Amino acid sequence: MIDRYTRKEMGDLWTVEARFESLLAVEKTVARVEARHGLIPQQAADDIQKGTFNVERILEIEQTTKHDIIAFVSCVAETVGVNGRYIHYGLTSSDALDTALSVQILRAKPVLMASIDRLLAALKKQALENMDVICSGRTHGMHAEPTTFGYKLSGFYYEMRRHKERIENAFTQMAVGKLSGAVGTYSFLSPEIERDVCKELGLKPESVATQVVPRDRHAEVLTALSFLGAGIERLAVEIRHLQRTEVGEAREGFTKGQKGSSAMPHKRNPIGSENLTGCARLLRGYALAAMENIALWHERDISHSSVERVAFPDAFILADYATDRMAKIVENLEIDSTRMKKNMELSQGQLFSSHVLLHMVDKGLSREEAYKIVQALSHGLKEGEQLCDVLLTAKETKEYFTSQDVTSIFSGERHLKNSKKLKETLRGEP
Amino acid sequence: MIDRYTRKEMGDLWTVEARFESLLAVEKTVARVEARHGLIPQQAADDIQKGTFNVERILEIEQTTKHDIIAFVSCVAETVGVNGRYIHYGLTSSDALDTALSVQILRAKPVLMASIDRLLAALKKQALENMDVICSGRTHGMHAEPTTFGYKLSGFYYEMRRHKERIENAFTQMAVGKLSGAVGTYSFLSPEIERDVCKELGLKPESVATQVVPRDRHAEVLTALSFLGAGIERLAVEIRHLQRTEVGEAREGFTKGQKGSSAMPHKRNPIGSENLTGCARLLRGYALAAMENIALWHERDISHSSVERVAFPDAFILADYATDRMAKIVENLEIDSTRMKKNMELSQGQLFSSHVLLHMVDKGLSREEAYKIVQALSHGLKEGEQLCDVLLTAKETKEYFTSQDVTSIFSGERHLKNSKKLKETLRGEP
Amino acid sequence: MIDRYTRKEMGDLWTVEARFESLLAVEKTVARVEARHGLIPQQAADDIQKGTFNVERILEIEQTTKHDIIAFVSCVAETVGVNGRYIHYGLTSSDALDTALSVQILRAKPVLMASIDRLLAALKKQALENMDVICSGRTHGMHAEPTTFGYKLSGFYYEMRRHKERIENAFTQMAVGKLSGAVGTYSFLSPEIERDVCKELGLKPESVATQVVPRDRHAEVLTALSFLGAGIERLAVEIRHLQRTEVGEAREGFTKGQKGSSAMPHKRNPIGSENLTGCARLLRGYALAAMENIALWHERDISHSSVERVAFPDAFILADYATDRMAKIVENLEIDSTRMKKNMELSQGQLFSSHVLLHMVDKGLSREEAYKIVQALSHGLKEGEQLCDVLLTAKETKEYFTSQDVTSIFSGERHLKNSKKLKETLRGEP
Amino acid sequence: MIDRYTRKEMGDLWTVEARFESLLAVEKTVARVEARHGLIPQQAADDIQKGTFNVERILEIEQTTKHDIIAFVSCVAETVGVNGRYIHYGLTSSDALDTALSVQILRAKPVLMASIDRLLAALKKQALENMDVICSGRTHGMHAEPTTFGYKLSGFYYEMRRHKERIENAFTQMAVGKLSGAVGTYSFLSPEIERDVCKELGLKPESVATQVVPRDRHAEVLTALSFLGAGIERLAVEIRHLQRTEVGEAREGFTKGQKGSSAMPHKRNPIGSENLTGCARLLRGYALAAMENIALWHERDISHSSVERVAFPDAFILADYATDRMAKIVENLEIDSTRMKKNMELSQGQLFSSHVLLHMVDKGLSREEAYKIVQALSHGLKEGEQLCDVLLTAKETKEYFTSQDVTSIFSGERHLKNSKKLKETLRGEP
Repeated sequence: MIDRYTRKEMGDLWTVEARFESLLAVEKTVARVEARHGLIPQQAADDIQKGTFNVERILEIEQTTKHDIIAFVSCVAETVGVNGRYIHYGLTSSDALDTALSVQILRAKPVLMASIDRLLAALKKQALENMDVICSGRTHGMHAEPTTFGYKLSGFYYEMRRHKERIENAFTQMAVGKLSGAVGTYSFLSPEIERDVCKELGLKPESVATQVVPRDRHAEVLTALSFLGAGIERLAVEIRHLQRTEVGEAREGFTKGQKGSSAMPHKRNPIGSENLTGCARLLRGYALAAMENIALWHERDISHSSVERVAFPDAFILADYATDRMAKIVENLEIDSTRMKKNMELSQGQLFSSHVLLHMVDKGLSREEAYKIVQALSHGLKEGEQLCDVLLTAKETKEYFTSQDVTSIFSGERHLKNSKKLKETLRGEP
Repeated sequence: MIDRYTRKEMGDLWTVEARFESLLAVEKTVARVEARHGLIPQQAADDIQKGTFNVERILEIEQTTKHDIIAFVSCVAETVGVNGRYIHYGLTSSDALDTALSVQILRAKPVLMASIDRLLAALKKQALENMDVICSGRTHGMHAEPTTFGYKLSGFYYEMRRHKERIENAFTQMAVGKLSGAVGTYSFLSPEIERDVCKELGLKPESVATQVVPRDRHAEVLTALSFLGAGIERLAVEIRHLQRTEVGEAREGFTKGQKGSSAMPHKRNPIGSENLTGCARLLRGYALAAMENIALWHERDISHSSVERVAFPDAFILADYATDRMAKIVENLEIDSTRMKKNMELSQGQLFSSHVLLHMVDKGLSREEAYKIVQALSHGLKEGEQLCDVLLTAKETKEYFTSQDVTSIFSGERHLKNSKKLKETLRGEP
Repeated sequence: MIDRYTRKEMGDLWTVEARFESLLAVEKTVARVEARHGLIPQQAADDIQKGTFNVERILEIEQTTKHDIIAFVSCVAETVGVNGRYIHYGLTSSDALDTALSVQILRAKPVLMASIDRLLAALKKQALENMDVICSGRTHGMHAEPTTFGYKLSGFYYEMRRHKERIENAFTQMAVGKLSGAVGTYSFLSPEIERDVCKELGLKPESVATQVVPRDRHAEVLTALSFLGAGIERLAVEIRHLQRTEVGEAREGFTKGQKGSSAMPHKRNPIGSENLTGCARLLRGYALAAMENIALWHERDISHSSVERVAFPDAFILADYATDRMAKIVENLEIDSTRMKKNMELSQGQLFSSHVLLHMVDKGLSREEAYKIVQALSHGLKEGEQLCDVLLTAKETKEYFTSQDVTSIFSGERHLKNSKKLKETLRGEP
Repeated sequence: MIDRYTRKEMGDLWTVEARFESLLAVEKTVARVEARHGLIPQQAADDIQKGTFNVERILEIEQTTKHDIIAFVSCVAETVGVNGRYIHYGLTSSDALDTALSVQILRAKPVLMASIDRLLAALKKQALENMDVICSGRTHGMHAEPTTFGYKLSGFYYEMRRHKERIENAFTQMAVGKLSGAVGTYSFLSPEIERDVCKELGLKPESVATQVVPRDRHAEVLTALSFLGAGIERLAVEIRHLQRTEVGEAREGFTKGQKGSSAMPHKRNPIGSENLTGCARLLRGYALAAMENIALWHERDISHSSVERVAFPDAFILADYATDRMAKIVENLEIDSTRMKKNMELSQGQLFSSHVLLHMVDKGLSREEAYKIVQALSHGLKEGEQLCDVLLTAKETKEYFTSQDVTSIFSGERHLKNSKKLKETLRGEP
């Protein structure tokens, strides 16, 4: 069912074919390097470069061997001819498999990064355009103090940057190959061959491998994807909140012909954001399974394999889908600045209570006293009453406030004053 | 830091002392039964009943033995005198430990169940009292159709009942002991002794044990607690939504002197519900660790022990704290039925769009046509305009609606008609 | 990549087609019951029974509507003709979807249960056949006391029975449908219609629904599958241990032509068991995502949907695959009783040290003294030396042991004496 | 129960007192900087430097305020006198709390790093000392090819280095503070004040905060600890395997007086490693809860708080305990090189089968043919028979092998040849 969430470009990288293509690239590179080092005849290496595979044939051979790499090698050998016997020369399966997995993961990098960059660009653009659009900042779901919509989005922009960095770090540490043989001792192939093969493939050699590249590296990749998912989730939850009937400050774009509910024709629901909230949960599940993969037995056991066959394709597909979809949601986000202002009025001026408090402390009251007074006045506001008016008339407060004080406090200027600077900083970001 | 969330009654059951008390109860029961079966002298059993322990002394002995059960047995033996050597007769540590852990878990049952029953009672009471309080039902965070506040709470009541049932099932299957020795073969003590000891302790003998009671049982208990946590989380999230500034339909009670925010005196935040949302996350973490405990090696390894020393006390303490706190939140929930009605008006009648749709289908339109018409009218509503009025005047709809139709559809009667029946059903629940 | 682990019978239940088939079954049942209750014309219900769907056409319509249920209903309506407008009459999407999901899950039940029963039968058979095959019981990976191989397998049998029971409970509580409309208030369809539809589908009506069947039910199903996975994992880990080169007490059957390693022709690896160990990790991940699904917002949000589209098919497919594969592994397990005996000799009689200890306590030594003596003698055993011989000659022990004592203690009889009884009990199990 | 795993140095950093000490450090720094910037009188700042707190008094005040930061500020204010009203000037709780949490986490850094460095040093030392100690490399739990014990440990050393790097990265990105006020807009305090306060505290200002430092940073810290735990788990599992009765290649040091089992005096169990395996599970649970903390609502909700009050202390305490304990286990590891050699002989030469295979391919056989021959000979070895002898006599192989070939292949030289180089590299590591 993952098909539903598969963007073609990413999906194509995780098919059965794509896996064998990575393997073939590794085997061919190994042959070339081995010939250069005199381990196999140059003619063999040349012939191997023409090798191909056929998934059906591999599966057929696997029926007998119960070992898909041996089946793959046999299948390619059939297409190479007599020199086929030099394919996989000196390798153990994991040399090829793990090096190929690194190659495959790295092939997914530009696709995923393009999605992330699209999301970053969308966030930056919307943040800049909405930097002066004042709205209520909310803590605990309650109005707290004014902020701007651009300010909010900047926070998401910078968080997404951190996720991008985590993913880049994860890719960097994942860019390793290993050809050190059955238990990592280079009993067949020398470190030099490993070095040269890795170099041609854009990888570094594993420091000390077991039979496999240690699985902490793979777990870091899947964990980084789950962090990306969690960052998208935070933004998705924000949008879902803002689209609520009672809030209505922003909403996902709705295409012509789209239906919100089969029974309720009026509905326009933030289904994209909800969908992505769920994706984040799945990504956490894959990360978890990958973490459990770390403690393999001795020089390796193969328990990580079933996890990775499912989790790598599905997590990359979901992460890419989620990022791309969120990018589109942000690009098409409908923002209602009028509603934002209207919602701010709901608090009857309480949004500015902290500045009222500070003003009173400046005038000599203790924090404690001032707090009690402002809390009582706030909680006692009647419908339609504004805190600014009450401050000027209530006996507990009138001596501390001139109408100029009140105008200054309730204008929102103080809350906006940093947005200009942030705009400049943000403009300078990549 | 778990202390902060420790209700004394539950906390007392998970102290170091409480653990040794359970162990002592098991050792004394074993001695009595063994004497009855003629394995140890009656005098020894009698003397052992007077045995006590001292945590400091146990820790002191453990310094040497590096084995806390041996240290415990030695410590009790010191208080018993010469017959102390009959304590733990024929047992391996796990016989005593696992049977004692079951005893300890079962001691926590009535405390936790009292919290759950308090929450259930609070939900039932509030549900009954608010069964006719009409409010907006929301899907995707958007107004969908009318419901009643009591209806909402009934759903939580029934879900909590299911969590209670899961916990009861988990306790029932956890109520096992084992005295079958080092690898579960009854090489010392007979199944009859196990049976009699278990019976005195309110347990059943494990079907086939290894050295230990298999850990799927313990994982079921901690998983049931995490489900309870998730149920509380759903309710907590509901309250957090309803308390939002823009919604304001319900809010947690606020005690005199309470402060919402150190900077913003006006704030009244749903901090109880937020706190419990976090507790649910911790509980999931403990459940996960417990699930990983299942696959112990051979007749047991002791990797489950460090998990259980932390997860059992902390998960029980958190689950009990969360349930009790949520019970109080529900009991003291401030419900604003006026605001509920006011919020419903926000939809300008769209809440009833599905009934409008059905009415048009009844009048002979295809679902498709009717849907398009109602969607267009709904999305085109101007501020202040009501869907009921538009239906009577719009050229696409006026032929299908009499003003009687409209009154009937927009009264909300159809949405309330089942609440009476539900009230009766609910009253009959325990 | 889940395809690799898909057994056809289970896979067929989780295709896109299978999902729509369940939906169609629900829609047809609803039409029949509605006609019976006079809500729609009998002719409409009759016509609807002939309705079919076509996945491509549904996807085509979904391009416009962005709503797959509306697309599905439109597609079926096209095949029904004019009475197509009565399909889905009075339903909200979730009425159909959630009821259909329950139907789909229940269809998976017999397939999964057959796999579980096959595994149980294999465990029972092997347990009975090997009940008297003596081998070393191991705790902490170390020889502890003798047990029998059948005894070991019995423990797995009974654990698997508990997992089966958990899954049955999960299916039972999942066997609910709901037709109570947009927010669960029965504003269109009556509880009676729900009751009758559910009955025809083998379901019970949800007690109080929101828009959806509450997700604690679905989480219980996926959690039960993860417990099943953990039980299989424990058995898989046991087999992996027993197959180790140094242990060699059991091994997975090896088919003709199978290859263990591409580089090392001698290898015979427990790859089935390792593969299943990984599957258990994935299943935990899905359970976790399902637990996070519980706390949906208000009367529902749709964040659970993306999780379920992936997790339900994949978890069912993996659980079924894992159970079936483990059944075959147990059926074909090669057991080496000679090696078991040989391994027991490695301990030089230390396997019986607990009985030596008890004997000395019986002879009047304190537990403490006896322990010290036996520990010292055990740790001091030289290569080839047997504890039984040392006991008869060492000055600290010789007074307590006759050669008859020693023979009785070291014969293993006491460890086997319960196996006869267990065999009888096990024979009586289903 | 976490007490049991609390090393004093780390535990002291996570007490209630330590939390308030961090907070006090922040409040004092803020006062100093504010005075410097002219926001509060210098005298006030001076007075505040003398402020102290008393946990009991804070709890007492919290009874009324239900807000622990307000209670803390009030308590300190009481000790400062009239200028106490300038404490917390211009801050919202989260400014102080989150900055203080960063300070507290950074205080834990050197303690944890010292444990990690001790473990690294132990691994390096043992790896160097055992670099030429030949032993069997194992894949799937089966003998694969020879390696050396130092080689194995080097792998763990390099993995631990990666975990250290992850933790350092996590600490670096966690080293941020924020004083940007209620919703992160600097409505009171300027970015300059934030900058100066952060600088004094060794932190950087958060790029764009909400009310809080975004929780992806905290999740990265707890995830890094769970990776550390998983690395320790892999090593623990290795030791547990090696200590098995049948393997006996290494074992945890046993102190005088230590008891392995209450019933079985001969037992010496790898309980340290088992204990740490369990710790890794708990750490994964905390990481998971921290990941769920990321998606806070709007400018923050407080659901992260209950998670962090439990997870931060417990995860740091466990990670530190686990690392320190593992360091000691490695330092005191008893290594049995004789047993290693003896175990290698179990394979009857099959450990070298891959080199036999390669040799035959070099002699002109196809890989396929050679594989079949070697597999058949290997699986057909009789007790006591050695593969090297069979190769020289079997009709399928004798033409390909001279006795010199055989000596060269079966000497193990090829497997050791890289260990010298690795020793040099390792010596050069920090």
